Amino acid sequence: MDLATLLGMLIAFGFIFGAIASGGSVLLFLNVPSLLIVIGGSIAVVLMQFTIGQFLGAFKVALKGFLHKSVDPQELITQAGVLANVARKEGMMALESQEIENPFLNKGIGLCVDGHPPDLVRKMLSKDISLTISRHEAGQRIFRALGDIAPAMGMIGTLIGLVQMLANMEDPKTIGPAMAVALLTTLYGAIIANAFALPLADKLELRSQEEKTNRTLILETISGIQEGMNPRVLEELLKAFLPEGKRANEESTE
Amino acid sequence: MDLATLLGMLIAFGFIFGAIASGGSVLLFLNVPSLLIVIGGSIAVVLMQFTIGQFLGAFKVALKGFLHKSVDPQELITQAGVLANVARKEGMMALESQEIENPFLNKGIGLCVDGHPPDLVRKMLSKDISLTISRHEAGQRIFRALGDIAPAMGMIGTLIGLVQMLANMEDPKTIGPAMAVALLTTLYGAIIANAFALPLADKLELRSQEEKTNRTLILETISGIQEGMNPRVLEELLKAFLPEGKRANEESTE
Amino acid sequence: MDLATLLGMLIAFGFIFGAIASGGSVLLFLNVPSLLIVIGGSIAVVLMQFTIGQFLGAFKVALKGFLHKSVDPQELITQAGVLANVARKEGMMALESQEIENPFLNKGIGLCVDGHPPDLVRKMLSKDISLTISRHEAGQRIFRALGDIAPAMGMIGTLIGLVQMLANMEDPKTIGPAMAVALLTTLYGAIIANAFALPLADKLELRSQEEKTNRTLILETISGIQEGMNPRVLEELLKAFLPEGKRANEESTE
Amino acid sequence: MDLATLLGMLIAFGFIFGAIASGGSVLLFLNVPSLLIVIGGSIAVVLMQFTIGQFLGAFKVALKGFLHKSVDPQELITQAGVLANVARKEGMMALESQEIENPFLNKGIGLCVDGHPPDLVRKMLSKDISLTISRHEAGQRIFRALGDIAPAMGMIGTLIGLVQMLANMEDPKTIGPAMAVALLTTLYGAIIANAFALPLADKLELRSQEEKTNRTLILETISGIQEGMNPRVLEELLKAFLPEGKRANEESTE
Amino acid sequence: MDLATLLGMLIAFGFIFGAIASGGSVLLFLNVPSLLIVIGGSIAVVLMQFTIGQFLGAFKVALKGFLHKSVDPQELITQAGVLANVARKEGMMALESQEIENPFLNKGIGLCVDGHPPDLVRKMLSKDISLTISRHEAGQRIFRALGDIAPAMGMIGTLIGLVQMLANMEDPKTIGPAMAVALLTTLYGAIIANAFALPLADKLELRSQEEKTNRTLILETISGIQEGMNPRVLEELLKAFLPEGKRANEESTE
Repeated sequence: MDLATLLGMLIAFGFIFGAIASGGSVLLFLNVPSLLIVIGGSIAVVLMQFTIGQFLGAFKVALKGFLHKSVDPQELITQAGVLANVARKEGMMALESQEIENPFLNKGIGLCVDGHPPDLVRKMLSKDISLTISRHEAGQRIFRALGDIAPAMGMIGTLIGLVQMLANMEDPKTIGPAMAVALLTTLYGAIIANAFALPLADKLELRSQEEKTNRTLILETISGIQEGMNPRVLEELLKAFLPEGKRANEESTE
Repeated sequence: MDLATLLGMLIAFGFIFGAIASGGSVLLFLNVPSLLIVIGGSIAVVLMQFTIGQFLGAFKVALKGFLHKSVDPQELITQAGVLANVARKEGMMALESQEIENPFLNKGIGLCVDGHPPDLVRKMLSKDISLTISRHEAGQRIFRALGDIAPAMGMIGTLIGLVQMLANMEDPKTIGPAMAVALLTTLYGAIIANAFALPLADKLELRSQEEKTNRTLILETISGIQEGMNPRVLEELLKAFLPEGKRANEESTE
Repeated sequence: MDLATLLGMLIAFGFIFGAIASGGSVLLFLNVPSLLIVIGGSIAVVLMQFTIGQFLGAFKVALKGFLHKSVDPQELITQAGVLANVARKEGMMALESQEIENPFLNKGIGLCVDGHPPDLVRKMLSKDISLTISRHEAGQRIFRALGDIAPAMGMIGTLIGLVQMLANMEDPKTIGPAMAVALLTTLYGAIIANAFALPLADKLELRSQEEKTNRTLILETISGIQEGMNPRVLEELLKAFLPEGKRANEESTE
Repeated sequence: MDLATLLGMLIAFGFIFGAIASGGSVLLFLNVPSLLIVIGGSIAVVLMQFTIGQFLGAFKVALKGFLHKSVDPQELITQAGVLANVARKEGMMALESQEIENPFLNKGIGLCVDGHPPDLVRKMLSKDISLTISRHEAGQRIFRALGDIAPAMGMIGTLIGLVQMLANMEDPKTIGPAMAVALLTTLYGAIIANAFALPLADKLELRSQEEKTNRTLILETISGIQEGMNPRVLEELLKAFLPEGKRANEESTE
Repeated sequence: MDLATLLGMLIAFGFIFGAIASGGSVLLFLNVPSLLIVIGGSIAVVLMQFTIGQFLGAFKVALKGFLHKSVDPQELITQAGVLANVARKEGMMALESQEIENPFLNKGIGLCVDGHPPDLVRKMLSKDISLTISRHEAGQRIFRALGDIAPAMGMIGTLIGLVQMLANMEDPKTIGPAMAVALLTTLYGAIIANAFALPLADKLELRSQEEKTNRTLILETISGIQEGMNPRVLEELLKAFLPEGKRANEESTE
């Protein structure tokens, strides 16, 4: 599981709660109608921009993004070497009996075993990568949409509160507390956007890029195997996908 | 019909109305001159940016975007398999008697039957796709323009109200209500932009992307049929267009 | 002439004037020094960003953009069919005697008649299109620059007014009117940007895109004629440039 | 020399000074500590983003950009025709004795005379163009960085002033003048960004584009000469680089 | 070491400190809870967007970016000439005994010596460049994320302070100081973003571009050597990578 996101969110909310608590009553900052207009209104507007299916699916995708651990590229490279060796020595057919955990690699190897020509395999896997990425983007876009609308809803709530306060200013004593309440929606909107929705969207984007790099690495593996590339040369080529600090048998070039 | 957009808009306006009603008189928030300058002024500025034809057409395009249900890609793939089978067994001419509901697929098949060379067919359909998308964009752009100008018109209205209030501050009692009225235009502008125009523009963009994916799938179908591709291979290739959860006969690779 | 832009601008200014007039004296909103710093200062800053020639030329380009009526693509397609027919039956030379109103089409046909090879003709016309578009962009950029700087100049004017007011706050009665005057520059800047400069820039951009589509259509026409394409096939190919509602002899695929 | 930029800046500052002077004492707007934090702080932050060499070099590049007059493309086209004629009639070697003022054209001709193959010449000149442009961008980026940071530094200065004023509000009479001083840094930041740094960056960008167009024209000239293109055809091809109003022997197609 | 960044930061903080100190007590600007919510909260939100490994690694990358001196391209070009000479006269194998300091050049030469075909070498080095650049971007992105979130956290802190102040306005004397404290978080956020995080991100971007240019130069060197290019021609080609002022044996073309 990805601790950084959960940990970061807990710490961020901790600091915000600390600032609230250190200044007096925490209840001052809890206003149910304000919460309703910011959270409810924002979610409703996000719903407008998507289909119901995408809307519900986004949370599944997001959860997956956080729980799912990216495959270590180093493992993929090692496996690529093994597979290339088998293909070279025993022929393409021998790949069928290999146990392959990664489903995308498995699919690619399946296409090789079925004897599809390299061009078609490349085309199918490339299309698969680009369409998977565009589906991942839907999850990011929902959180980004939430992060864009929440501050706007907060401002709408504050404007409503200000109009109500300004129209009834007879008792000067009520001005302060009324304005405090009006500001709460802006505060809620800012917190939802900056400490929840936008960082989650960024994290999902990062995940999606890792996944893309891994799948591109697998695509290169399949191409190399089909071209009958020397296993050692293939591994060397794939090593460019690793951060330089992790490349075992060559000096760093960073 | 697309419920998500309609539902989302109703809920969003419900929350906004709730916040207004919970604070006292709703009439406080109704000011006809303020409505006129924000709505009328914004529409006039949007009109400036387009031709009258586009301006009126945008609403038709938008309505279509919401009522129109995108074709399920799965159906298109199934049909592609059937058509490829027919073309393979009975020849290209046999496609003529097939009943094809989707007009774009129909057009493409018509071009095949007419015996145009694959390159020309591809060129014609590709140009058709890119020009259809650019026409769809006109609809999005009108709503996006409305979403950009409404807050600016709201600010212009508030500035006018503030200048009028500040120039006549003799009676301090009138300051509050006058400023409340001045803020109304900013509130109207924010609501129009954030709970109406911008989410509609985003929704139309999503629709346009779905349409583009479907048309690209159809283009690949036509190309495959003309190249005499094996129907099973063609279906496999087209499956990359489906979300992975919906690919029936292969394990998920997500 | 393009009514939408003129009409839109008149209506927008009508609503703004209405809001001003409905609140009391219109003279309150007229302040010559404020007008000078916003309009004069903005034009001066725009001048900084361009050469004097471009600056003066932009207004000519802009005027042309509004008065000039785009050619109807349908007419161009009809003419393309006629020309392709002539070229096919009577040879390329026969095109010389054709009367062609559109100067870009005329130029292209002239190149065909002169016997330049298709590659060179395509290269020359393509470069012509891309450079014409980049010249059109200069006009848009000047209005966009004006729309960017006017609100900034308005803010500078308001800051100057606020500093003067704050430094001399002895008589509280003068605060209101002084601040009203200070806000005027912000109001002027917002109106110039949002109801004049930015919509004009957007309109010019739209015009430039229409022109580009038309010229691309002409380029395809010339290429088709040089390749000796069947006139009917050529017309079919060019029809993709038409909005689908206007394609006479085929069912809509939208 | 480029008058537009100098003239525009003088006029813009004239209007700003006029607005300041018309409202009373000009000295009110001069505050040395405020000037120091905005100008000094902004320059220091810009320095952070570049190397010392780039930082100092930017001003040289900028000065050059304003003083340097772009070559008239028409002259380059005429010269291209002359050179192509010489190369055709007397051979490539005869180009050596031609006097060529423009250093980039001179370099290209030198490469032709040296007998390098067309591909290599094209590669060398293309790389030269793209790297020259990226060096020009460094100058623009420094002014753009200054334009981004100055308003932020102005806001920091104003916040510091506000905190100092709010913490010592015993004498209400001092509030006005203290706030006036606090606002000065925001005013300075806005003026530096909008009437100096950003327009200069835009102007340098325009210059850089003109230079790029000229160099691309020269690249096409060299390629045409090496391919032995007909001088008249070459001139025709190069004319697409001219604004249409300036193309002498053909009717306008705009 | 890169003095410009360190120097710029010291000067910028000096000016800010000067403005604070010149207005009275410096302690007024130190508020530990405010510091905690801005710095702690911002770092926590940045952590959310990355993995723990990237988060910790970013500081190492950043430090390296500032301490590491970019290689002088002139040196690389000289060395390229030497290596091309050796390869030409004594064959590819003789390159093995050359001492090469730059690890990326060393790797490339190693691939040549190993006898890999030019296409494969080019592919491996190109992939290496693009992946190195994308790793460098992670460092930039962390500082850019910090620069985006710090002002937002500052605003959240100020809103919390304002709500607390407005809810307890009984003693008018406390309003000023309470608001001063509330504004401090906005000030902290603005300083962290504008005088620390964003300029550092920009500087790292610049470094990354320099590194990319150098590596591209090396890639061209290796290609040239493998193609057996004339050492003098190779050096001429590589000179396009140098700023024009530094090209020794040719006149400036700027």
